[in-house]
Amino acid sequence: MNELVRRCLEGDVRAVARFITHLENGDRAAFAALYRLKDHAGNAQVVGITGPPGAGKSTLADKLIAEFRKMRKKVGVLAVDPSSPFSGGAILGDRLRMQGHATDPGVFIRSLASRGSLGGISSATHAAIRVLDAAGYDIVLVETVGVGQSEVDIVRVADTVVLVSVPGLGDDIQVIKAGIMEIGDIFVVNKADRDGADKVVREIRVMLETQAQLRAGNAPAGGPDTLVAREPDMLHHAGLVPRTAGTEAALPPVLKTIAETGEGVPQVAQAILTHFEEWKNSGALAQKRLDSISWQLRQFVQHEISIILEQPGPAGTTQELAKKVLARKTDIYSAGLALLHEVFKEGAAHESTQA
Amino acid sequence: MNELVRRCLEGDVRAVARFITHLENGDRAAFAALYRLKDHAGNAQVVGITGPPGAGKSTLADKLIAEFRKMRKKVGVLAVDPSSPFSGGAILGDRLRMQGHATDPGVFIRSLASRGSLGGISSATHAAIRVLDAAGYDIVLVETVGVGQSEVDIVRVADTVVLVSVPGLGDDIQVIKAGIMEIGDIFVVNKADRDGADKVVREIRVMLETQAQLRAGNAPAGGPDTLVAREPDMLHHAGLVPRTAGTEAALPPVLKTIAETGEGVPQVAQAILTHFEEWKNSGALAQKRLDSISWQLRQFVQHEISIILEQPGPAGTTQELAKKVLARKTDIYSAGLALLHEVFKEGAAHESTQA
Repeated sequence: MNELVRRCLEGDVRAVARFITHLENGDRAAFAALYRLKDHAGNAQVVGITGPPGAGKSTLADKLIAEFRKMRKKVGVLAVDPSSPFSGGAILGDRLRMQGHATDPGVFIRSLASRGSLGGISSATHAAIRVLDAAGYDIVLVETVGVGQSEVDIVRVADTVVLVSVPGLGDDIQVIKAGIMEIGDIFVVNKADRDGADKVVREIRVMLETQAQLRAGNAPAGGPDTLVAREPDMLHHAGLVPRTAGTEAALPPVLKTIAETGEGVPQVAQAILTHFEEWKNSGALAQKRLDSISWQLRQFVQHEISIILEQPGPAGTTQELAKKVLARKTDIYSAGLALLHEVFKEGAAHESTQA
Repeated sequence: MNELVRRCLEGDVRAVARFITHLENGDRAAFAALYRLKDHAGNAQVVGITGPPGAGKSTLADKLIAEFRKMRKKVGVLAVDPSSPFSGGAILGDRLRMQGHATDPGVFIRSLASRGSLGGISSATHAAIRVLDAAGYDIVLVETVGVGQSEVDIVRVADTVVLVSVPGLGDDIQVIKAGIMEIGDIFVVNKADRDGADKVVREIRVMLETQAQLRAGNAPAGGPDTLVAREPDMLHHAGLVPRTAGTEAALPPVLKTIAETGEGVPQVAQAILTHFEEWKNSGALAQKRLDSISWQLRQFVQHEISIILEQPGPAGTTQELAKKVLARKTDIYSAGLALLHEVFKEGAAHESTQA
């Protein structure tokens, strides 16, 4: 690992790829080696790109890479696929689209599966971001496919979240999108040559204004947005508010693009860089990163617990308890408490062997 | 709680609603009271209905309720919204569509938010299913909105999974759907009067046949499905195989519906009942439920850990460690191990006060 870490810090692309593979395989030595990257952490701007399937996220990412390359910035791309328990299948096509950059040493592209029952963004993804950061990539684009947990998770990972939508996806998707409006720092309406693009832009603006009013305490009586107002603690807990520095902050930009032709993409690239600068200067970035690290620490613990649950002892207990529940000798809740007891016992035993 | 449990077992609709509200609020006494339902567990057929946004799942559920009511079966419906951190917003419209059954005492309809960082199906949802089961509902429909973790989770909850698709949702969604094909027991192509319905039916059949060949060990060389073949352990771990009893089992039915008019819905209702009977008779149902209970027990433990992480001690430690990571005094992995240690300490302390 020593050699691999050294070569990563020098920006060796193959070393970076190998390091990330170790992380994806859950190699403990690789995770432990992250310690040696810590002095080189926090320089990259992490940009999340998310939105519903078919919105053109990969094409936009592809064109953004080209923009950032013009500015001589090194760009790393991590594509996370949370919707499939099977790695690779759904995103191979997208990766192929980006292969135009395959021979450019200033661009690193990698697909990462979202594994395990936790869904969303894996600890390997977090770690891979840190590796790219330490290896000197100026921008790390994290693209998530699909609608779901990953779209909520990405806000924990990214300094800047670009939320991509598109005209004509139907009401259902638009409504679901409403639920994740809070996470966007920059809004992009792609395929803007399609009918209804201006309508989508207007809808997003209205929603952003309503949310800003809600945050300022001027909640309108009634209307669908009062549902959001009902659970401010949940919003806060999810790290979704405040997304802007200070109450006087302007609304996030809403930009139109035609990613296929590149139209509007330079403006998105500029908005991404501007957002980072503003956040850094206001001090909001440090707070955001602090929240993100706290969340990652909690995720780490949950991941470790899932590993303990697969150890022979707890796994056997789980089987026995399940049989008792099925035979109506106990119930799920009582059995769950018994399993929790076993996990603590296993954890304590593990701690004492390490002490 | 005693009185509430008694009235639930008598099938009192308002008691059922109140019990579920307690569960949603994380009321420990309500979870503990599940013990008293255990002698009345396992009678209901739990049916998951899932698929991409806009596929018409709610309309189909609505028409299925009517079919089951004709057979004098009591029907409970739980609608889970995993895509939004905000409860209610995205699904109110759907719930309103089903209000035709609001005055029928044999139908119980309830929306449940999917909360917390785990995403997918919450322990409150599991518990609510058990309450409806014990209260004498013959069929419990669990409908999930969106593409993501909930679609993978539903297979752990449901005895029978109905996977709804629809013509014309575009390539991206179809490809993502491919990743969750394994979870379907019954496939429905809704809005079958649209162009391309027969094509979707054919595509699903081809995919099911390919998967059956893969399971039988006749994997074709190359082709996109070899990606699935690469990780059989993952399929098994996810409880996704085997989905059918015995190797000689027929392929799952692929049915066309126009839910709006009700066309094809009686056939779906019949397929749901047939699937349950076949599974029960083959013994596969018991194994499936055993796997589901094991998974729920692991989920329970993860949920308890997330509660411990929010206690003052661990929450304070998380904050301190995050500050050290941000200041580059330590790294995420080392800090994560320290937090895990704190969680075990907290767990052990909790155990000893209970002993």
